[in-house]
Amino acid sequence: MKVIAGLSLVPLGTPLSLSPYVAAVEDLLAERGLTFTLHATGTDIEGEWDEVMDAVKAAHQKIHDLGAPRIQTHLSLSTRTDRAQTMNDRIESVAAKRT
Amino acid sequence: MKVIAGLSLVPLGTPLSLSPYVAAVEDLLAERGLTFTLHATGTDIEGEWDEVMDAVKAAHQKIHDLGAPRIQTHLSLSTRTDRAQTMNDRIESVAAKRT
Amino acid sequence: MKVIAGLSLVPLGTPLSLSPYVAAVEDLLAERGLTFTLHATGTDIEGEWDEVMDAVKAAHQKIHDLGAPRIQTHLSLSTRTDRAQTMNDRIESVAAKRT
Amino acid sequence: MKVIAGLSLVPLGTPLSLSPYVAAVEDLLAERGLTFTLHATGTDIEGEWDEVMDAVKAAHQKIHDLGAPRIQTHLSLSTRTDRAQTMNDRIESVAAKRT
Repeated sequence: MKVIAGLSLVPLGTPLSLSPYVAAVEDLLAERGLTFTLHATGTDIEGEWDEVMDAVKAAHQKIHDLGAPRIQTHLSLSTRTDRAQTMNDRIESVAAKRT
Repeated sequence: MKVIAGLSLVPLGTPLSLSPYVAAVEDLLAERGLTFTLHATGTDIEGEWDEVMDAVKAAHQKIHDLGAPRIQTHLSLSTRTDRAQTMNDRIESVAAKRT
Repeated sequence: MKVIAGLSLVPLGTPLSLSPYVAAVEDLLAERGLTFTLHATGTDIEGEWDEVMDAVKAAHQKIHDLGAPRIQTHLSLSTRTDRAQTMNDRIESVAAKRT
Repeated sequence: MKVIAGLSLVPLGTPLSLSPYVAAVEDLLAERGLTFTLHATGTDIEGEWDEVMDAVKAAHQKIHDLGAPRIQTHLSLSTRTDRAQTMNDRIESVAAKRT
């Protein structure tokens, strides 16, 4: 089962700048060979369900290890059985319908 | 690693009433012995990370099997390393601070 | 336009305990006469779109005034034109379909 | 009060392809002169709180008018009082910290 996920992870009890933590998550996703894109409110990831979810768990563990005592994550998860669809397919499909 | 999760799963390409699908997910959580509470905008679940996440995956598979070709889920995930906290702890802690 | 909203507001740059801030938001909702229910991962609210959204804005302003330099909120918003539905209707509808 | 918002709007009771509805929302944001970026799991928007929220309301109304009897939206909302920050600032700040 493939998934397109939108990950927004917020560490609590840390300095106000979240970018070092977000960068640490991006590094982790890159090390795992996942396809992902950073945007202003989160990171979109596509891949096999188990690989994506293992990465989300590893991200929580890594951010706790970096000193955050508490983490609040929001994760969107899209699956479909009717056809394959990549993150790029979605963006191009919308762009083609703009007036 | 314990997690408190907020699950909101929306099947697409199905009849407009979502309650049969939400009920199917609740049944699945109950069969797995997870602690959960239904509320108006989703279902809160607490447990070990892997057990909760396995249930979310099984929920997607079950809802696809029930005929939904597409599923859009939103999941909130809270973890903390400073102390244990249950869903009830959270609610009582807020109630105690109301004016 | 009526809306059923799920509000999860997280202040950053504050002490780790979020309950004083959540309690302050609940007080604000109560003062405005809104119908709402606290649960473990957020607060569900029902009402007219503008009233609910004004309350969300006022909540951000109040939490900033209480000392949080940064706030990260997640809000789910359900609207429908086919029929009226309350938060209780939703919960009862699911309960009736459990096996 | 400035806000950085992440909008993910899902119409229910419509054909499975969501891109026509997402495109209609992008058109609406463009007509209003808002700064926004489409990504695979939603649309990020920055601007004054009231302008962004008016656009979200107008988006619900437009999608209902296009035939969707039910809409499920997830909206993330970031506000901060310590300093100004644009969507681009956020992305560049993370990129600078990648290893």
